[in-house]
Amino acid sequence: MLTNVNLRSHLAVYAQIENQVQFAIASGQLKAGDQLPSIQELAQRFDVNPNTVAKSYRDLEVMGYVYTRRGMGVFINKDIDQKCRENCRRGVASRLYEVIAEAKAAGITASELKDTMQKCLALSTNPYSETPTEILALAKQQPPARK
Amino acid sequence: MLTNVNLRSHLAVYAQIENQVQFAIASGQLKAGDQLPSIQELAQRFDVNPNTVAKSYRDLEVMGYVYTRRGMGVFINKDIDQKCRENCRRGVASRLYEVIAEAKAAGITASELKDTMQKCLALSTNPYSETPTEILALAKQQPPARK
Repeated sequence: MLTNVNLRSHLAVYAQIENQVQFAIASGQLKAGDQLPSIQELAQRFDVNPNTVAKSYRDLEVMGYVYTRRGMGVFINKDIDQKCRENCRRGVASRLYEVIAEAKAAGITASELKDTMQKCLALSTNPYSETPTEILALAKQQPPARK
Repeated sequence: MLTNVNLRSHLAVYAQIENQVQFAIASGQLKAGDQLPSIQELAQRFDVNPNTVAKSYRDLEVMGYVYTRRGMGVFINKDIDQKCRENCRRGVASRLYEVIAEAKAAGITASELKDTMQKCLALSTNPYSETPTEILALAKQQPPARK
């Protein structure tokens, strides 16, 4: 959790940080009252500008997921895990829908997609790590002959 | 093909247009020599600024997928379908990997993901249409009890 960001992702770094905190709340890894790393600490860990981390924390506060205790740090709010879980599930469902529709439009078959999903489930660790070469290699495979 | 863009997507409109052309080449819907709609026509169809469509066409030309015949229009290049198919498959695999890793991080189970994928496969039409409410409703479902 909050181990890395992918500077080559299509998703902005501040959004990757916001998502990771939300995923951790949704999965129960972060609970009410838990403290987030300080802005300086996280900026160093990810090797990004502290303003980027500050933006993520500010957004998370506006969304109601965290609160700031001045001089103390940033903490997870209570009674937000259900709402957070629903938001995360809605976001994932929506992105999954988009990528599957893209795949269909590009002529990728349902069985290929299911195989790729299996491999992704087995291999995936952090959402914002580089895509494993085993997954990218699937792109080179000859698609099955058309019916 | 090229029927709509989603102004509420996280993906910029010009990128949605570029992707749709690439998916159509990858799936064989657009073939070498086929003509794309004129910039004005597509801008009207999508109700977007002609400059947006012009950017997509320019990018597609830089990528080598289309060429412009002055006074005639924009046409699909030859011998690019294999490269285009590979690029599309790589992009889909990479995005599928990301969303599955996000789902895992958010505590969504493999079996839930497979169910959602089934529904997406059954319902999806255009990648840049609104996510169907049946898919978004999955977010509200009570996740199965933790083991």
